Amino acid sequence: MKKSVQVCFSPKLYSLFHQEESVVVVADIFRATTAIVTAFEHGAKTMISVATPDEAMVLRNEGYLIAGERNAIKLDGFDFGNSPLSYTPDVVFGRNIAITTTNGTQAILAAKHATGVLIGAFSNLSVIVRQLNSLKKDVIVLCAGWKNRFNMEDALFAGALTEALLEYELFETHCDSAMASLDLWHIAMHDPESYLEKSSHRHRLSHLNLSEDIHYCLQLDSCTAIPILHGKELVEIKTLF
Amino acid sequence: MKKSVQVCFSPKLYSLFHQEESVVVVADIFRATTAIVTAFEHGAKTMISVATPDEAMVLRNEGYLIAGERNAIKLDGFDFGNSPLSYTPDVVFGRNIAITTTNGTQAILAAKHATGVLIGAFSNLSVIVRQLNSLKKDVIVLCAGWKNRFNMEDALFAGALTEALLEYELFETHCDSAMASLDLWHIAMHDPESYLEKSSHRHRLSHLNLSEDIHYCLQLDSCTAIPILHGKELVEIKTLF
Repeated sequence: MKKSVQVCFSPKLYSLFHQEESVVVVADIFRATTAIVTAFEHGAKTMISVATPDEAMVLRNEGYLIAGERNAIKLDGFDFGNSPLSYTPDVVFGRNIAITTTNGTQAILAAKHATGVLIGAFSNLSVIVRQLNSLKKDVIVLCAGWKNRFNMEDALFAGALTEALLEYELFETHCDSAMASLDLWHIAMHDPESYLEKSSHRHRLSHLNLSEDIHYCLQLDSCTAIPILHGKELVEIKTLF
Repeated sequence: MKKSVQVCFSPKLYSLFHQEESVVVVADIFRATTAIVTAFEHGAKTMISVATPDEAMVLRNEGYLIAGERNAIKLDGFDFGNSPLSYTPDVVFGRNIAITTTNGTQAILAAKHATGVLIGAFSNLSVIVRQLNSLKKDVIVLCAGWKNRFNMEDALFAGALTEALLEYELFETHCDSAMASLDLWHIAMHDPESYLEKSSHRHRLSHLNLSEDIHYCLQLDSCTAIPILHGKELVEIKTLF
């Protein structure tokens, strides 16, 4: 029997999609999930996604590095914001990291009751696709969006993932958001950076000079790490099996 | 100062967009808002959008015609479902009609606190655009969707409306959902009926033989009526001014 691919454009809509047996891929392309994938790629031991800066501060006292941003700016006194480029091996290898971000953390927490929660980014797209094909479960792509609104970069990731999954006989979709994502990805795929020039994220963050980050976040398959939610922690999937 | 155009893909997300001074255009293309526009085009006096079939039944005793569907099927004992083709002049002229539908009614109720709520459809697109241009307010296009999920046909309407508004100097957008809608409309505009063949609505309703309805719902500018929410009732805009 075929497995379904569905795309949810906002954590606030996730309850409409939730099914106990589905696997959820959470994406916050600019930049939380890209940063999380990078951290594990570079040897982070565990990460924990917390709702508030205060919760992160408590974990610092237990030896955690702490990562936090609001409105794309690093929080005062934190080790990282969510620039994936700051998660270098010399800093993160072997460490536990607590992270709180505007949208990504909220999306991960929204999906926490699913049977599996994978952290997705363009950087680990191909390994995510292979993993989903071997799990043989229905898939929900949960876009973190921007403060619960639809955003373009997460929808493009959802489209790229949907396209790759539909290449397998196993998967099918009757979900309009998946089809919309796919069509948007087809428009953008040859040059997503230019396509996203018009997006709200660029407009919102143009003063922050994030072009190096954005370039990195849109690169395909630079990583092989798959972070997965295990209890309250994110771990790398190979740690778990 | 320019006025913004934003698109909200689900009534469940409307609270994120609500601004007291904005005008909301509610669209449930298949088929509630297309039916409402048709009813006013054919002389309906007022309509009232109610949440439950029971509320409609109460209004029948006050002389209302009653319209209701759930999951695209007309409710037992009701005068209409939401096929716009059933709202003929001989039936609706001069009458008050109470309507309850799966998605459209809920969307109208979600927006009831906005400064203006217009009922939009492909059939009254051009008059809606002219009206919005003369109102000179920020615009939110509220897609009714399907049970609070994104759907393709309402997004296409949002894209067509966004495109038409952006032709006026007055309007601008920095909203990713508006830009996504616009790009989807550009893919679909030359043949929306074929484009929507793959959509969830077609899959869901293929057994109901709605092709005549669907063809009608996608025709541009067959009507000049603009229904507007006035208190608890929908009236035609010319009745109000």
